[in-house]
Amino acid sequence: MTVEWEKLFAGRVGGMSASEIRELLKLIAKPEIISFAGGIPDPDLFPAPALSRAYQKVFESNSGPGDALQYTISEGYTPLREWICAYMESKGARIAMDEVLVTSGSQQALDFLGKLFIGPGDLVAVTKPTYLGALQAFSPYEPTYVSIAMDDQGPVLDEVDTALARKPKFLYLVPDFQNPNGITVSLDRRIAIIERCAAAGVAVIEDAAYAELRYDGDSIPSMVALDAERNGGSPATVIHCGSFSKTMVPALRVGWVCGAKDAVQRMVLMKQAADLHTSTINQVVMHDVVSEIFQGHVRRLRDAYKQRRDAMLTALADFAPPGVTWTKPEGGMFVWVELPEGSDGVALLERAIKEANVAFVPGAAFYADRSGKNTLRLAFSVNKPERIREGIRRLCGLLGQGAV
Amino acid sequence: MTVEWEKLFAGRVGGMSASEIRELLKLIAKPEIISFAGGIPDPDLFPAPALSRAYQKVFESNSGPGDALQYTISEGYTPLREWICAYMESKGARIAMDEVLVTSGSQQALDFLGKLFIGPGDLVAVTKPTYLGALQAFSPYEPTYVSIAMDDQGPVLDEVDTALARKPKFLYLVPDFQNPNGITVSLDRRIAIIERCAAAGVAVIEDAAYAELRYDGDSIPSMVALDAERNGGSPATVIHCGSFSKTMVPALRVGWVCGAKDAVQRMVLMKQAADLHTSTINQVVMHDVVSEIFQGHVRRLRDAYKQRRDAMLTALADFAPPGVTWTKPEGGMFVWVELPEGSDGVALLERAIKEANVAFVPGAAFYADRSGKNTLRLAFSVNKPERIREGIRRLCGLLGQGAV
Repeated sequence: MTVEWEKLFAGRVGGMSASEIRELLKLIAKPEIISFAGGIPDPDLFPAPALSRAYQKVFESNSGPGDALQYTISEGYTPLREWICAYMESKGARIAMDEVLVTSGSQQALDFLGKLFIGPGDLVAVTKPTYLGALQAFSPYEPTYVSIAMDDQGPVLDEVDTALARKPKFLYLVPDFQNPNGITVSLDRRIAIIERCAAAGVAVIEDAAYAELRYDGDSIPSMVALDAERNGGSPATVIHCGSFSKTMVPALRVGWVCGAKDAVQRMVLMKQAADLHTSTINQVVMHDVVSEIFQGHVRRLRDAYKQRRDAMLTALADFAPPGVTWTKPEGGMFVWVELPEGSDGVALLERAIKEANVAFVPGAAFYADRSGKNTLRLAFSVNKPERIREGIRRLCGLLGQGAV
Repeated sequence: MTVEWEKLFAGRVGGMSASEIRELLKLIAKPEIISFAGGIPDPDLFPAPALSRAYQKVFESNSGPGDALQYTISEGYTPLREWICAYMESKGARIAMDEVLVTSGSQQALDFLGKLFIGPGDLVAVTKPTYLGALQAFSPYEPTYVSIAMDDQGPVLDEVDTALARKPKFLYLVPDFQNPNGITVSLDRRIAIIERCAAAGVAVIEDAAYAELRYDGDSIPSMVALDAERNGGSPATVIHCGSFSKTMVPALRVGWVCGAKDAVQRMVLMKQAADLHTSTINQVVMHDVVSEIFQGHVRRLRDAYKQRRDAMLTALADFAPPGVTWTKPEGGMFVWVELPEGSDGVALLERAIKEANVAFVPGAAFYADRSGKNTLRLAFSVNKPERIREGIRRLCGLLGQGAV
């Protein structure tokens, strides 16, 4: 007799599936393919000199590199948490040191929030569409999803009310330039959602991964800041997930989660059990780099990505056949395309890779209810403007041939 | 109305508690305290020059640092996985590339194994005592523990049989110089445990964190190698967790888990959902460093830690009052002290810190059943020999005053 692995696995394992995005990323590495698939920053825009200097400083410091190379506390490197608290305060939310936890990217914050709140069968409210990585983080804890439709102002309030009446554990959303559809939740809608969730005793999880990447239009306060404002300065309803992956660099895996102390302190215990702490040296380096260059670097990113967004929107206006619509995001990395009803994004992707050397992500992956077959996510962050125009020309050529 | 956090938390949150070790580490930072508490490597022995060079190389490479700073695949950096496969083969276990996953320290592997196997109420077999971090990793998945007593050869086979008859999901153990008690599982006992577990269809989880740190006695094959040998070269029953934290440096948070493909591929999906991947640049750097200096550096560590172990054992022989016994580990970082029945390690710790400026970890924390109140874990890894002797002299002075 030997071990029959499938029989030993816990029930939650059934809820896990490979990310279509990540599996796709493996297929499209060929240089002739213009990929709008990966929602990743452009490596040419990484602050490499600042990072190089910061790593070097660790080894040249007078006290030696010992502390940066040793185990550390699960909460995170104290100067980095202080920087995060000051940053959050500059955005209007007063966060105490014991209300912030450094995580290994904001993806880990989503995993911890799933672990903290979700028991088998518990309801979780998400938007329609929503961030695929959030569904992947939550699903191992076996929730039932309730999906809330969106209009161009964000989640539709009638559907928020219907969802809250069913008493979900939390409502998860990406209020700024949402991955995947680029929509930004309006100020009025943000306030209404916080009030309704607070009244229903339902937590709000705000994923602010893209919040700094605004290219035009007025800046809107974060939901955690609005929550803090109505609660005397400190958040009571909103838990906020932040990330340095989009503003600085993804590979160091440094993000954070902040909000009510009761919730954050439980996540500190989770962190200790899950991986002890985030890489010490990477936290020291990230603190050094953000202290030095955060604002200037983000301005540089905004300039570069704005041109790419403009190139994509212009190309879509120039080349898209009738019946195809798309969002006009004010920031972030994504344009969301809606094809005529009955179109199939997955079938289109197969043809696009083979016949047009273009790739994107079919939108259905971003729906908890697996609807949205006629949608596509196009990332404009990685390619230069001319290449974006060429890729959109090729993709629209396929669409014009009735490929959908 | 507002959010009542405690009411929203999932049931598993009740099983989480602060690590006594980590809470203690915060108390004993005063320089006058000789601490045997933290089971951590000596920062003076970190390979800082090799690490510094490796980080610098990332930024000076001809292809630029882009790939090392970008998102990567969840499986881990391919050259590092290749190194791990070659390393495992040198230890007698043939591991294919799709049978190894790079994790953020071996603590993350333990979390993933808990997530993979344990549903609420499932049985998990551990030794008595066992690694506290494993209990912390498993407990959020709500197992019931069955604890197996140890003698100086490892887990007692009668108790292994009794535990296996109850059909646990897996048996977890640290076969080499176990944290906390320093005991090494003998060759015969390893083979017997693998055979019994394979026959019962129960997985074995081998935590090999300390395996390279042997100071004398004959090297014993790892359990995954013995499993592979009886199975034609590849493991079928044993899942192996490895770590660079004890051999190289902890702060980069790089470890691995390897074994049957069915189990490892599920953990790749978990990794994607939990934190996408381990820090890219840290994996690149770790690969560079282990390729350059692994064997030589481990020899250097063995020389230094052997002197410290010897200093602790000699001091205990010289100063310990009658009725106190301790283990004589052939490697690792820990000596385990047993006080007379009825003694209380926690009460002793309070007096030791206050009256003798010495710290250690009371042993009860390492028992799933919270027995072992009369035991202490002493780490000899951080202090130099003279300081170890002085600390043991002080501690034994307290013991001799009838402090227990």
